[in-house]
Amino acid sequence: MRTLLLALFLVPLTLTAQHEATIKQIYDYQLTQSEAYENLRYLCKQIGPRLSGSPQAAAAVEYTRQLMASYGFDTVYLQPVMVPKWVRGQQEIARVINSQTHGTWELSTTALGNSIGTGPDGVLAEVVEVSSIEEVNRLGKKLEGKIVFYNGKMDPTKINTFSAYGSAVVQRAYGASEAGKFGAKAVIVRSMTNRIDDIPHTGSLVYKPLMPRIPAVAISTQDADALSKQIAAQKELKIYMETHCKMEGEVLSYNVIGEITGTETPDEYLVVGGHLDSWDLGEGAHDDGGGCMMSIEVGRTLLNLGLRPKRTLRVVMFMNEENGLRGGEKYAEMAKAKGEKHLAALESDSGSFGPMGFSSMGTDKQRKKIQSWAPYFRPYHVWSFENIGSGADISPLEDQVVFLMEMEPNPQKYFNYHHTAADVFEVVDKRELELGAATMAAMIYLIDQEGL
Amino acid sequence: MRTLLLALFLVPLTLTAQHEATIKQIYDYQLTQSEAYENLRYLCKQIGPRLSGSPQAAAAVEYTRQLMASYGFDTVYLQPVMVPKWVRGQQEIARVINSQTHGTWELSTTALGNSIGTGPDGVLAEVVEVSSIEEVNRLGKKLEGKIVFYNGKMDPTKINTFSAYGSAVVQRAYGASEAGKFGAKAVIVRSMTNRIDDIPHTGSLVYKPLMPRIPAVAISTQDADALSKQIAAQKELKIYMETHCKMEGEVLSYNVIGEITGTETPDEYLVVGGHLDSWDLGEGAHDDGGGCMMSIEVGRTLLNLGLRPKRTLRVVMFMNEENGLRGGEKYAEMAKAKGEKHLAALESDSGSFGPMGFSSMGTDKQRKKIQSWAPYFRPYHVWSFENIGSGADISPLEDQVVFLMEMEPNPQKYFNYHHTAADVFEVVDKRELELGAATMAAMIYLIDQEGL
Repeated sequence: MRTLLLALFLVPLTLTAQHEATIKQIYDYQLTQSEAYENLRYLCKQIGPRLSGSPQAAAAVEYTRQLMASYGFDTVYLQPVMVPKWVRGQQEIARVINSQTHGTWELSTTALGNSIGTGPDGVLAEVVEVSSIEEVNRLGKKLEGKIVFYNGKMDPTKINTFSAYGSAVVQRAYGASEAGKFGAKAVIVRSMTNRIDDIPHTGSLVYKPLMPRIPAVAISTQDADALSKQIAAQKELKIYMETHCKMEGEVLSYNVIGEITGTETPDEYLVVGGHLDSWDLGEGAHDDGGGCMMSIEVGRTLLNLGLRPKRTLRVVMFMNEENGLRGGEKYAEMAKAKGEKHLAALESDSGSFGPMGFSSMGTDKQRKKIQSWAPYFRPYHVWSFENIGSGADISPLEDQVVFLMEMEPNPQKYFNYHHTAADVFEVVDKRELELGAATMAAMIYLIDQEGL
Repeated sequence: MRTLLLALFLVPLTLTAQHEATIKQIYDYQLTQSEAYENLRYLCKQIGPRLSGSPQAAAAVEYTRQLMASYGFDTVYLQPVMVPKWVRGQQEIARVINSQTHGTWELSTTALGNSIGTGPDGVLAEVVEVSSIEEVNRLGKKLEGKIVFYNGKMDPTKINTFSAYGSAVVQRAYGASEAGKFGAKAVIVRSMTNRIDDIPHTGSLVYKPLMPRIPAVAISTQDADALSKQIAAQKELKIYMETHCKMEGEVLSYNVIGEITGTETPDEYLVVGGHLDSWDLGEGAHDDGGGCMMSIEVGRTLLNLGLRPKRTLRVVMFMNEENGLRGGEKYAEMAKAKGEKHLAALESDSGSFGPMGFSSMGTDKQRKKIQSWAPYFRPYHVWSFENIGSGADISPLEDQVVFLMEMEPNPQKYFNYHHTAADVFEVVDKRELELGAATMAAMIYLIDQEGL
């Protein structure tokens, strides 16, 4: 009996100590032998921006396919998916015209993704400032023939910047349709950032069915503040807007899937991933090249440390998160069609800043289990396990009862770069990227070992 | 009785709710009305590097004196302190000479602070690589006439980079004396950073009494790796080193002290501060301009929100932390001489990255009290209250039984910039700086309200 009692006491202790040691091994490996940073450099500098349907997106598909194959993943394959091909065309113009002096002033601007263009003749109209979609609906027909300037700000007092983004971004997503239904000619949106600077942020809009489609651009926050002052100072201020973007139908693209076959229950799946497409303005470094490269490192780390998972691990490079989510939807559709059993999916699409925790969506029991692992992560400064949330690409898996998670990096600086020309390789820190990869690998390891 | 019982239950609840509300007010104020970022811009861009004894250090004294006076601090005064004046002179040379081809190769180098110079004739000698002071002591007299190259690395697997720095920096601090005692001619030190790049990091050395003083420089990590390979490949590799730095005695400088007089116990003091001097290579933005500007914001925030403290708050800009600690020592000396009672001192000298917690030194009871406040800070992503430690400038107060604290920002990126030409205004994030100022202000508020 004494031996049995001892064994009972020893088992959990031993397990914990073993997990602690393995997790330290994973972090040490990333901090000394990671390839994430150099792989991200290649993706950003040799391939560059990867808008869905572009040749660069195709290059990224082939690059990551080869990369996972070279690391000894058991299978690497492409999952076909049709994606929208939106093209920007030549540089946009948003020109303020002073009706008294006839002087002009160019705003730092960028067309919103999925927007129609004005074409070469442009749009010239009086500009009306609003701070929300609610205000547009109050103004109604007064907006007919006008350019509507959405100047609602992200709330700087929200510590989680993603929450501030979530409240403000509806202007960018639906502002064009909402203004278009009252006969507005075009829409200008304040860029989605807390910073005051001269960098315009693109991002997708969604045209609502059966509503008029009008062109939309974003302008920098600095210019948004200046424009707002000018509107207050001068009646009937006009803007000339010219954009050449257009949607060119759909083209064939792919999710890239690398598998490490499970040793015990190969028919049960764990997913880890990010999205391979990006906007066309920068290099998609934080959004979401880093997420892709960290996800690949999860597989590479487990393989190279001899930690082959019990369940089958799928590392997925999702296509078309930015302006369609077609890759995420296709993955879920195929999983359902094949009746695959997914235990959990983990996404990284909030930048490659220092990891601070995980948000999740699942049962209370599952979330409590994840939270009980917090002590394993605290030595690595990862402390937040309470937030509810999932990544966009894995969210279509929700109805298949999959536990969904997103890694949460420090959110303070993400919207300095998001969807801009400033989202380049140089603004990703090597060490923070490696800590992120290790944090994801440790979580996948624990889920695989302990179940949910 | 019922009223009394209710009151008993209500008091702690009300206090907690009031503290929560006040702390939110403090964070909101910083995130919307902080002047820390623009003040730091002035300090970095209009004044620049502020080596002790330099005209720029004097400018920084006058600037911060005026700044605190303009904010309505009750008293702002200068505390005289003699500081060493070390000057770099013209650009250093560290030139590798290939004994076979006679080809040369320039290393990215910078003299260490407080080092003597080689003078215009320079030093030419064979270079010997070591990885620690222990190895120097093993080699002993074999180092006579040689240039000793300390190539010990910071341990990348330590999550707290300050801990990795602490282990490696003894080479920089004492390496010259330790090699000098065996007759070495000069010392080269690998820069103190986990990054592999081309930026040399300066920092102070300390010549031990009665030991020979020899010149010392740091080289970039990239060049340290390359030099190490070259030493392995070629026997009797020589280096020509030329430095023009020298110590020019002592000059008068100042700590700058801004006081907000306590409303209840004005003879009891709380200190918050950073150091005003910096190295000469960059702009001293993270080290420690940010710490100074956050500290001033602590006072400004409490004044402008009507949160005048019960105890007297001293905001202190310490002089000469980098190569002498004279300011910190003078402050403690004067406090002792005047018999002043200090309850607590809080320093920020670990950069202006996103705040994650506080280290502290005091009684168990005091530390437990601080830790019990963790829930107030968690909404702001500040979670770490366990580490033991203090800032350098306030550490001389220890023997006066003062509770010592240092704010702990995220430590991952500090040694990308520390003591280099890259520590400029642009690498400080506005929002992270503001969160740091709010975090310090909230802690000072709690200590003042609740005692220790």
